[in-house]
Amino acid sequence: MRIMVINPNTTTSFTDTIQKSCERYISAGTELIVTNPSKGVASIEGSSDGIKAAYHLVELIEANEGQGIDGYVVACFDDTGLQAAREVTSAPVVGIGEASLHMASLISARYSVVTTLQRSVSILQDNASTYGLDKRCQGIHAVNLPVLALEDKALAFEAMLKRSKEILEQDKSECIILGCGGMSGMSEPLSEALGVPVIDGTAAGIKLIEALVGMKLQTSKACTYAYPNKK
Amino acid sequence: MRIMVINPNTTTSFTDTIQKSCERYISAGTELIVTNPSKGVASIEGSSDGIKAAYHLVELIEANEGQGIDGYVVACFDDTGLQAAREVTSAPVVGIGEASLHMASLISARYSVVTTLQRSVSILQDNASTYGLDKRCQGIHAVNLPVLALEDKALAFEAMLKRSKEILEQDKSECIILGCGGMSGMSEPLSEALGVPVIDGTAAGIKLIEALVGMKLQTSKACTYAYPNKK
Amino acid sequence: MRIMVINPNTTTSFTDTIQKSCERYISAGTELIVTNPSKGVASIEGSSDGIKAAYHLVELIEANEGQGIDGYVVACFDDTGLQAAREVTSAPVVGIGEASLHMASLISARYSVVTTLQRSVSILQDNASTYGLDKRCQGIHAVNLPVLALEDKALAFEAMLKRSKEILEQDKSECIILGCGGMSGMSEPLSEALGVPVIDGTAAGIKLIEALVGMKLQTSKACTYAYPNKK
Amino acid sequence: MRIMVINPNTTTSFTDTIQKSCERYISAGTELIVTNPSKGVASIEGSSDGIKAAYHLVELIEANEGQGIDGYVVACFDDTGLQAAREVTSAPVVGIGEASLHMASLISARYSVVTTLQRSVSILQDNASTYGLDKRCQGIHAVNLPVLALEDKALAFEAMLKRSKEILEQDKSECIILGCGGMSGMSEPLSEALGVPVIDGTAAGIKLIEALVGMKLQTSKACTYAYPNKK
Amino acid sequence: MRIMVINPNTTTSFTDTIQKSCERYISAGTELIVTNPSKGVASIEGSSDGIKAAYHLVELIEANEGQGIDGYVVACFDDTGLQAAREVTSAPVVGIGEASLHMASLISARYSVVTTLQRSVSILQDNASTYGLDKRCQGIHAVNLPVLALEDKALAFEAMLKRSKEILEQDKSECIILGCGGMSGMSEPLSEALGVPVIDGTAAGIKLIEALVGMKLQTSKACTYAYPNKK
Amino acid sequence: MRIMVINPNTTTSFTDTIQKSCERYISAGTELIVTNPSKGVASIEGSSDGIKAAYHLVELIEANEGQGIDGYVVACFDDTGLQAAREVTSAPVVGIGEASLHMASLISARYSVVTTLQRSVSILQDNASTYGLDKRCQGIHAVNLPVLALEDKALAFEAMLKRSKEILEQDKSECIILGCGGMSGMSEPLSEALGVPVIDGTAAGIKLIEALVGMKLQTSKACTYAYPNKK
Repeated sequence: MRIMVINPNTTTSFTDTIQKSCERYISAGTELIVTNPSKGVASIEGSSDGIKAAYHLVELIEANEGQGIDGYVVACFDDTGLQAAREVTSAPVVGIGEASLHMASLISARYSVVTTLQRSVSILQDNASTYGLDKRCQGIHAVNLPVLALEDKALAFEAMLKRSKEILEQDKSECIILGCGGMSGMSEPLSEALGVPVIDGTAAGIKLIEALVGMKLQTSKACTYAYPNKK
Repeated sequence: MRIMVINPNTTTSFTDTIQKSCERYISAGTELIVTNPSKGVASIEGSSDGIKAAYHLVELIEANEGQGIDGYVVACFDDTGLQAAREVTSAPVVGIGEASLHMASLISARYSVVTTLQRSVSILQDNASTYGLDKRCQGIHAVNLPVLALEDKALAFEAMLKRSKEILEQDKSECIILGCGGMSGMSEPLSEALGVPVIDGTAAGIKLIEALVGMKLQTSKACTYAYPNKK
Repeated sequence: MRIMVINPNTTTSFTDTIQKSCERYISAGTELIVTNPSKGVASIEGSSDGIKAAYHLVELIEANEGQGIDGYVVACFDDTGLQAAREVTSAPVVGIGEASLHMASLISARYSVVTTLQRSVSILQDNASTYGLDKRCQGIHAVNLPVLALEDKALAFEAMLKRSKEILEQDKSECIILGCGGMSGMSEPLSEALGVPVIDGTAAGIKLIEALVGMKLQTSKACTYAYPNKK
Repeated sequence: MRIMVINPNTTTSFTDTIQKSCERYISAGTELIVTNPSKGVASIEGSSDGIKAAYHLVELIEANEGQGIDGYVVACFDDTGLQAAREVTSAPVVGIGEASLHMASLISARYSVVTTLQRSVSILQDNASTYGLDKRCQGIHAVNLPVLALEDKALAFEAMLKRSKEILEQDKSECIILGCGGMSGMSEPLSEALGVPVIDGTAAGIKLIEALVGMKLQTSKACTYAYPNKK
Repeated sequence: MRIMVINPNTTTSFTDTIQKSCERYISAGTELIVTNPSKGVASIEGSSDGIKAAYHLVELIEANEGQGIDGYVVACFDDTGLQAAREVTSAPVVGIGEASLHMASLISARYSVVTTLQRSVSILQDNASTYGLDKRCQGIHAVNLPVLALEDKALAFEAMLKRSKEILEQDKSECIILGCGGMSGMSEPLSEALGVPVIDGTAAGIKLIEALVGMKLQTSKACTYAYPNKK
Repeated sequence: MRIMVINPNTTTSFTDTIQKSCERYISAGTELIVTNPSKGVASIEGSSDGIKAAYHLVELIEANEGQGIDGYVVACFDDTGLQAAREVTSAPVVGIGEASLHMASLISARYSVVTTLQRSVSILQDNASTYGLDKRCQGIHAVNLPVLALEDKALAFEAMLKRSKEILEQDKSECIILGCGGMSGMSEPLSEALGVPVIDGTAAGIKLIEALVGMKLQTSKACTYAYPNKK
């Protein structure tokens, strides 16, 4: 099984963080490729960043068709370009935002998301509502760190720990979802400190794409996600 | 007042159709610019077409900043790149999909949308649900004509008339929304033939952007639609 | 174009406030009539006030049929008698409550309403939910001033400013909607003080009715809003 | 216990039909007054009829305050003026539309409403949605008889039987709700003919108001349903 | 009329509390049997307690078939085993959780629930959402007393009074629902102290089952609640 | 990794069918135990069957605590006793109903469920709504075969093929979910015949539990799914 994980921004240190998380969770025997587009934006903070990143993400997937990729993970919590990605490949595609919400709902009755910036909150709420996965979600909150500030891991951990404690109390939640791909690697120590499960989206994405491939399931090409129409 | 209407696909005959509709509805004294990006896709049929078109739409709006545009209309019923467009300009931006749904809900208790292809139906349903404007919408249906087939106006009119009659009966609807920018120009004869109001999205977009500018309202730059963050 | 704006309560100083706001926003060439029923209630605070006002509003519209009115605005934020008004005239009718919610959703991802009294909050929530426009609405709140206390403009402005600041913080909203027709005139200074757009319902109503008339759209008489049945 | 049932239209033969249904279902020891306003409309078919009827209904309840009425039933399936009625009396008030939906949800997992005219369908859907009781409701349908045609009982029964059979099949429903006060008296024979429970709104209203009075519950006067404010 | 009220836990002092509340509210002429299964759990705090209690509840109802019971009340606020109970008897069955939500929505625009433990909150929210009765419910909260602690009536009353006051303020609610069968008996003094109506689920259940029997309504056996299929 | 799959009914031939499906999809290195309770019901067709099966399912899981089970799958499409099961073990638990809905939403924009009997449809709709996964679900339908009739595999396949074709057309769906554990083994040939993905719940359950265990995630014991309280 050959899985490609795409960090849709161009910051390679982010790609490295994601690679480490993938390696920690990937099954023996799964071949892993972690990459990012060479053009686009350094981080995805809002919708226009998202469109620019998605454009290059779609190009990158198109360029890989026929190279034996069995499944793709889009490693941005906004699920940047996810629906479009599903059209341009026959392999299944999972976004780490949706993956996290699915996994959280299997292990908890109440979960909350902690993302980087407030400007992403409405985007994530729209996604959760579109998927239907806002039903058990008690809140989507910002820790108020820019995406790239996550690279200072110690500072980011402290900020996340403090904010997560507040949110568990306020939302009466029982599980925390890390709302940014760049938070990968933080889930296990944070879970230990908080005493509740913490979901790492990259791990969730990897395991769900393995699950789909293991079930021999591919994206339905019947209509909505068919290859783009010839004009 | 200076309004720019952008057909986000590259088919200039479409842009001409939209221009005619705009000219028919625009207020005296409003300066009108109707244009399309020079790069991208010939028509938007699905999400990957949408991403490609949105990329160039955002670029085009960025290029116009500082040129005295008071408001933008995105003239694709999918509201391609709408949230992103709101970030990159201080002028208000209206999509013709949302505009149509807003207008229909002011004049009817039950309305239905007729779009081109079934592959766009789920995209439009997600949009309507995200806006909340699915509450009174009785159905979103395809006439099963590719976008570019709309250029044969007589054929397209017959197909739309037949399909709209079926839908009014089936949905018990009281108003029809034309679910594609390329259907502009069809609303008045279709309304006459059907005996119910028919909404032309381009007209709705033009009038709503005039309304916003007339109220001196601009997109809130407080957070979600702030200019993209510097990295 | 000839537009009638009806303040559904009998307080003429309110009608004057609304008239001033209308004059500020109306397009050149639109003829404006601002009026109120001579019987009914001095202010609309709750459902029984609403029924009494609506009764006389409907009578007033019926009395104006055939007088060349192209469109009506119901200038109470409760949208008093709105559905009934649509039945008794062929001209389009817009309520300032719905108008405000539509406009806010075109320029912000998150908006909140500030109305006069807590007793109206559930009424406004039911309206927003019925329209579907509660999706992006982050809260409907009372400033806790009786409707007629709005006539002390300085006091009302200070109270609104303080309450709006609290609500922007609490709801993480990006736009404020003035939840009472009597707050007309306050939107521009309040917007300046708050740094976010503020929606004046009367202005929104005027511009939306102009937009509908400009599109040559009338209320669908197909069924729900048909003229009352003969018995 | 003294209960007043108000047919909000002025057709006394309707009031008689409702009286008969009430007498059939009322508990021994409950004193029953069935009445209608002397002014207003002969039947309620749509929103403007509703406003006119509600105005006189509210007047009638106000006139009865202090006369020892323990509870009111509003005997129109549109729940005409229900929220307003709750404000003007300290006694509890139940509408037969809401009463029917509550009762149906206690005895069936799937129920459908059959009302008189299509023009009332959207009104009833809005009510059900406002109450939340659209969750298990599989459809609201018209039998396409004007309200006053229900007075030909044999014809009305045949039409209702035929339409109910279609609806049970189409909606896969397990219970029918009679969607008009004038259908009172039809529930038991229709239930026998259909083999599923059939809800008579008047009966439901009577029994729910008895239940509330029996529990010593009155409408909360805390805020929304407080007596109208003095101006 | 012969009504059986079943406390689904095995704590007989609870059954006694419920019996007292029933006797207070039951109509003259209704024969009352209050009982509990002899096996199962001492209190229902969460889903596994619920399954164990439901198993014995269903057995108990099956054992009573043919004994002339006209209606059942399930006297646990979780509505333990309610759907199952409806299948195994021809008599109507009402749960005290649903009964309370129905009654509260007839007398108030905004109500809140106070239950015992936080672990039941998500269960009650799921119930309310499934019934659709979460629409007007402003919150479901825990007083943080174990179910059996309710037997210290003075302590429980003080705790409930304090928590209810907080909740009325926070939720801007106008009615309190007692979210546990063991709180029966507390509604009238609590209502007096709070100045808003307080709903006792047992009373609500008793009166609703009397109402259904009085309407001659039985659970629809058409499909979902048909007797269990023979294998 | 040691996974226990529990068929909650007592029909061992069903357990065998499920075992075969599990063996086909399980990862190398996962130890598999497929079992069923020795007491309970032969098939789960409705809520009272569900309660009886759930009781013994919970007992069976309690009896296995401390035996090194890393995760459980509840192999009935009703997700019988799922919330209760989560309380009585520290290992994660997945139901095949929820698992199927999660998987379908990752590979298709529109999916429909085909279950055995109409009496289960409302139960499955309530589940989907509770999970939020009704958002993209276009319909839940019965093939009208009793559960045990699925053992005639050829007949069941023909019936499912015919019904699925009808449903794809009617719902405009792009993916079919097999709505009963006893349909396991049918997904691949049915997918081939229909040309769209078909989800086998048992496979989905197995792969999701492997995914959770691979992520080192356990059910949150913070509150809702904590071990049952001591009384």
